[in-house]
Amino acid sequence: MIKANNPQLKSWIEVPKNSDFPIQNIPFGVIKTISGTTIASRIGDTVISISALYKFGYLNDLGLTEQTINSSVLNDFIALGKKVTNAVREKISELFVDTNSTLKNNDAHKAEILFSITEIKNALPVRIENYTDFYSSKEHATNVGTMFRDPKNALLPNWLHIPIGYHGRASSIVISGTSIHRPKGQTKAPDAELPSFGPSKQLDFELELAFVVGKETQLGDSIPIDKAEEFIFGLVLFNDWSARDIQAWEYVPLGPFLAKNFASTISPWIVTLEALEPFRVAGPTQEPKVLPYLDYKGAKNYDINLDVIIKPKGAEETVVSKSNFKYMYWNMAQQLTHHTVNGCNMKVGDMYASGTISGPTEDSYGSMLEITWRGTKPLKMKNGTERKFIDDGDTVIIKGYCEKDGVRIGFGESASEVLPTK
Amino acid sequence: MIKANNPQLKSWIEVPKNSDFPIQNIPFGVIKTISGTTIASRIGDTVISISALYKFGYLNDLGLTEQTINSSVLNDFIALGKKVTNAVREKISELFVDTNSTLKNNDAHKAEILFSITEIKNALPVRIENYTDFYSSKEHATNVGTMFRDPKNALLPNWLHIPIGYHGRASSIVISGTSIHRPKGQTKAPDAELPSFGPSKQLDFELELAFVVGKETQLGDSIPIDKAEEFIFGLVLFNDWSARDIQAWEYVPLGPFLAKNFASTISPWIVTLEALEPFRVAGPTQEPKVLPYLDYKGAKNYDINLDVIIKPKGAEETVVSKSNFKYMYWNMAQQLTHHTVNGCNMKVGDMYASGTISGPTEDSYGSMLEITWRGTKPLKMKNGTERKFIDDGDTVIIKGYCEKDGVRIGFGESASEVLPTK
Repeated sequence: MIKANNPQLKSWIEVPKNSDFPIQNIPFGVIKTISGTTIASRIGDTVISISALYKFGYLNDLGLTEQTINSSVLNDFIALGKKVTNAVREKISELFVDTNSTLKNNDAHKAEILFSITEIKNALPVRIENYTDFYSSKEHATNVGTMFRDPKNALLPNWLHIPIGYHGRASSIVISGTSIHRPKGQTKAPDAELPSFGPSKQLDFELELAFVVGKETQLGDSIPIDKAEEFIFGLVLFNDWSARDIQAWEYVPLGPFLAKNFASTISPWIVTLEALEPFRVAGPTQEPKVLPYLDYKGAKNYDINLDVIIKPKGAEETVVSKSNFKYMYWNMAQQLTHHTVNGCNMKVGDMYASGTISGPTEDSYGSMLEITWRGTKPLKMKNGTERKFIDDGDTVIIKGYCEKDGVRIGFGESASEVLPTK
Repeated sequence: MIKANNPQLKSWIEVPKNSDFPIQNIPFGVIKTISGTTIASRIGDTVISISALYKFGYLNDLGLTEQTINSSVLNDFIALGKKVTNAVREKISELFVDTNSTLKNNDAHKAEILFSITEIKNALPVRIENYTDFYSSKEHATNVGTMFRDPKNALLPNWLHIPIGYHGRASSIVISGTSIHRPKGQTKAPDAELPSFGPSKQLDFELELAFVVGKETQLGDSIPIDKAEEFIFGLVLFNDWSARDIQAWEYVPLGPFLAKNFASTISPWIVTLEALEPFRVAGPTQEPKVLPYLDYKGAKNYDINLDVIIKPKGAEETVVSKSNFKYMYWNMAQQLTHHTVNGCNMKVGDMYASGTISGPTEDSYGSMLEITWRGTKPLKMKNGTERKFIDDGDTVIIKGYCEKDGVRIGFGESASEVLPTK
């Protein structure tokens, strides 16, 4: 068992009830403070500067280098490898456990190391090198196929054999709290002769999780499935904003493009795969049997509760979806192995999103497209309004957490407000 | 007129007959020499270290900074803007013109500044931030539509309205001279019940050019069409390697993925848009009329001759295609304007490829898929063998050049040998 995951541990830092960040989490992120940008962790509502911990000697002999620690992104830190990053997680656990008063009693050090969450802003945790979006929820693919193609053959012939994915846009991935503008683009109504141009009328979210790659490969190399998790550093929440009307007109035959690349919003703290270890569960049975290179052993899904909330400007919020990462048909190991089976090279800081995570019931669908069934069943909001898709002024919030043995490990949130077209 | 483009200029550096790199070109690249990696230019078969020119004071007062000059990629240099990069191009022209003997007579300086092309290796000229591949040749799209769909409705309904594009993989773009391995992957024969796994049997090239973005935009911003060329630094040759059998099985509904992302090969020298200025030509008439945001004025195509050559291991080479960049239906300004119309942000070092550049005749098709019409018309090679697609041991070479008023501006080549599956 990983020591830092011990459910018995308590921190001398106050952890509010239902916090996503008990001492068992110890995620990694990047913060901006009055003294600059630094890599950091978090316990409760207290943020821990890792560069300050290093400066005062608390992280000696763990294999860290000053250059890595003083970077404004986590890439170089992550690239040191799990042996080092896990040792840092364990050391932070030791420093902040309630039985250790070394740092607790050093007010001068604490003044430089600790910040209240209200004093900092998060920045993108990694320089995102390459971004791929998968399409790995069977429920989502079935819903989409039922709506747009044939309910009797909702899944395309390749879907049960390939963890389908496509390349997305890395540059427009933003950190939670960043507002986004409603995109403009070409659309064509089914009955229109010609396309027209204007703001999207069908702006949607997609509830996803994304993993960050922690170890590079060389061009030509493949990652065997039993090694795939060694290449996964951790996960963030991911909102894959989508403009359905732009998508419908542009996506044949080469896939979604401007319908997706105007923005995606991620949560700021990367929760490590190690912190999620207690929450492994078996995935769905895969039938027909997958090809040998995708055949995996053990529990490779994770039981992560996911909520999507819409908060209209100045009004009460409404929970519009309650889903779970455990529903994924294709797991992360299969995604990564498939992605490299042709020799495609991985870089540290690559981000791989799951695709919309829909569950089996209507209240667990991961997009407005599915929740309102293409706008045919408008959603009633708590403030009395209705939604077919997302309105200007709406903030879409994704939350995610695991819970077991009294320990709750969470992701915080991915939240972006939609502003009118610029 | 741009001074450095003057057809009358001659250099005191020897320029072999039919060289792509007369003094009117002055491209930018990155070289590895015995003394390290540096940004560089080239005249004839002589490579010019820009960092050494700077060190000896030849590039003073042009707005350069030491940090920019001493980088191992061109991104920071390019980000200084066209005012600076064009001034450097003009200054290099002045220094190497045959009427200027300042540097010519300084053997000590020349020893550090000049290298024979045989003494250096090229490296990737830019850190490629994001990569998009367009699909902008009407002839190519028509050929593909005729083969795979309906000859009577070969072009999909959106094609004449949208410069169709999709995101590709930046990490696997390699420099000319890099060998690539034949990719493995899932394929399914039309008559097979289940997919199988193994090396691709339909490895193909795609003849393309790609432009490099020189000026960033912020998320939410769009580039108006009359400003788009200000954002284009220059161009390289681009071989978008494709595994047709993998592509056929995976690409519905989200586009090509593993069929493309195992490798793309680019030529090493970025030829600036300014060097290509004399070779502008009008593009094809666009009918139906495009939407106003894509409506452009002036000549936005470029007359660039393109050759594709296959050289089997140890055997004579065969020219398999002679095409031209002027055939493109959608021009680069339209591609870039379309890409940003939804607010997608551009980064310096982004690379945007044209899509396969096929001409109107069979000998100008830009892929084996089209040349052999899906393998139904095998290509006879000069060494007596036949090709439906690309064999192990074949080197695929793309060359490109413009010619006018006795001046030939070229790109050198993009060449990669295909090695067996790893």
